[in-house]
Amino acid sequence: MREFTAGSIKPIQVTKVNGHADTLFPDVLSVEEPLEIRISYGPGHERMQKSISVTMRTPGNDPELALGFLFTEGIITSYETIQSTQHAGMNCSVQKENIVLVNFTEDFVPRLHQADRNFYTTSSCGVCGKSSIQSIKTVSPFLTNKKPKLDLSKDVLYPLREKLRAAQSGFAATGGIHASGLFTMLGELVDLREDVGRHNALDKLIGNALMNNALPLNQHILLLSGRASFELIQKAAMAGISLIAAIGAPSSLAVELAEELGITLIGFLKEESFNIYNLSDNVLIRTD
Amino acid sequence: MREFTAGSIKPIQVTKVNGHADTLFPDVLSVEEPLEIRISYGPGHERMQKSISVTMRTPGNDPELALGFLFTEGIITSYETIQSTQHAGMNCSVQKENIVLVNFTEDFVPRLHQADRNFYTTSSCGVCGKSSIQSIKTVSPFLTNKKPKLDLSKDVLYPLREKLRAAQSGFAATGGIHASGLFTMLGELVDLREDVGRHNALDKLIGNALMNNALPLNQHILLLSGRASFELIQKAAMAGISLIAAIGAPSSLAVELAEELGITLIGFLKEESFNIYNLSDNVLIRTD
Repeated sequence: MREFTAGSIKPIQVTKVNGHADTLFPDVLSVEEPLEIRISYGPGHERMQKSISVTMRTPGNDPELALGFLFTEGIITSYETIQSTQHAGMNCSVQKENIVLVNFTEDFVPRLHQADRNFYTTSSCGVCGKSSIQSIKTVSPFLTNKKPKLDLSKDVLYPLREKLRAAQSGFAATGGIHASGLFTMLGELVDLREDVGRHNALDKLIGNALMNNALPLNQHILLLSGRASFELIQKAAMAGISLIAAIGAPSSLAVELAEELGITLIGFLKEESFNIYNLSDNVLIRTD
Repeated sequence: MREFTAGSIKPIQVTKVNGHADTLFPDVLSVEEPLEIRISYGPGHERMQKSISVTMRTPGNDPELALGFLFTEGIITSYETIQSTQHAGMNCSVQKENIVLVNFTEDFVPRLHQADRNFYTTSSCGVCGKSSIQSIKTVSPFLTNKKPKLDLSKDVLYPLREKLRAAQSGFAATGGIHASGLFTMLGELVDLREDVGRHNALDKLIGNALMNNALPLNQHILLLSGRASFELIQKAAMAGISLIAAIGAPSSLAVELAEELGITLIGFLKEESFNIYNLSDNVLIRTD
């Protein structure tokens, strides 16, 4: 069982009420704090800073979160354009931990039009699921790649939920926090990230892969601890993931996006059953 | 059991895999579609439109969602400033349902500085939980009100989870969707809203109360179907709610905000147990 990074949980005294009895009990909370993602870009004397986003997140792996966010939002397309990342702040110690500054190389021009709020949902023809899906197709760097054939055994899939749970920290396993897990096609856990925000957990996972030059993640299974929304499928697609399993239900737009992008989407994954919402051409699900 | 509004669920054929057997089965998905909230304001000849937000939501009760959002974000403070709300779009039928235009009365000046992205998390001293909490204190219209004493029986609390579940639509009860329920101090369900986004379910609930001149909701119990994050406590505080129970865990910043604003916060509500994360002065929890 994994230990939590310092700062991601907070001890608290909680009154536990059971039937009619009350007891004061030491417990823990998952920490939620804002993180501002800032970028610094341009040549030396014209260097500029810009605030890109503020998200509520569980502290820990902040550079991964920032890079994963910038990548899945289409603002950067590779790690080579990153000079460094650092926690930055002014003269307030609390605040420092809540700002990550991403320094780009001098010659890199970030795709800042992508940073407009709700880019995916407002661009092209207007506000509708269809246009949201179309705009993603134009920015994902790996969507034009030919997808490798994936051979998925049901017996590999069934134990994944329990493997994810076992690998989560004790507290997280009780359901206080979301997790994204990356597995090989043989069901081995490659990586795991946790956060109070489901999109942050996935951004951290993808940010780490970006930093380790491991993208695209096209020979893996992505496991989501909760429901699968549009936003999660979109982020996964940006990382080249074509096989997603969720422990919860997918939304209508998540299924439409999976269909449109050729992503296999599994929901309600349990120990002996699951639902297939979309099966893409490159994936074969087989009974051993 | 409540019926779902048309458009909030979508039928789908899903392959259900059980052990090694596959069956094609009719099922439903919760619909997720973007909603753009636009406002129209100013005197006749200088009338202006502005896009305020795009959120992924379950279609249904869109005017409530728009008004609840504008209210909980501090852009409007009463229903009297609203002339009308309408679905609006250009010449694309899909799109029309995904834009709500809120028309303000001519003399009303909306508090647009509140509409800046992440207002609560970036204002005042910088990016930290403490400043987020401080900025909320300055905008909530009901926080200076004296809170009425609330007498809460444990026996009223224990059945609430089951009452919420029974009142949800069949599909929603399976966990595909978030719910916010409003109960009297005797445990009677007053109102219930559901959405793929937890913040949207609460905005719809509060928007409806705003439209019915029922704010502040200071003699009620708010029940959240999942975890309690900072954002949910913030929205509840704006509506004058001082008693919140969640079926899931609260985050650290949710507890801090509840402490700071004098809100009683209960988590992990089950049939015979719950945790008290903060007990405010005006609330007495008693054993019958």
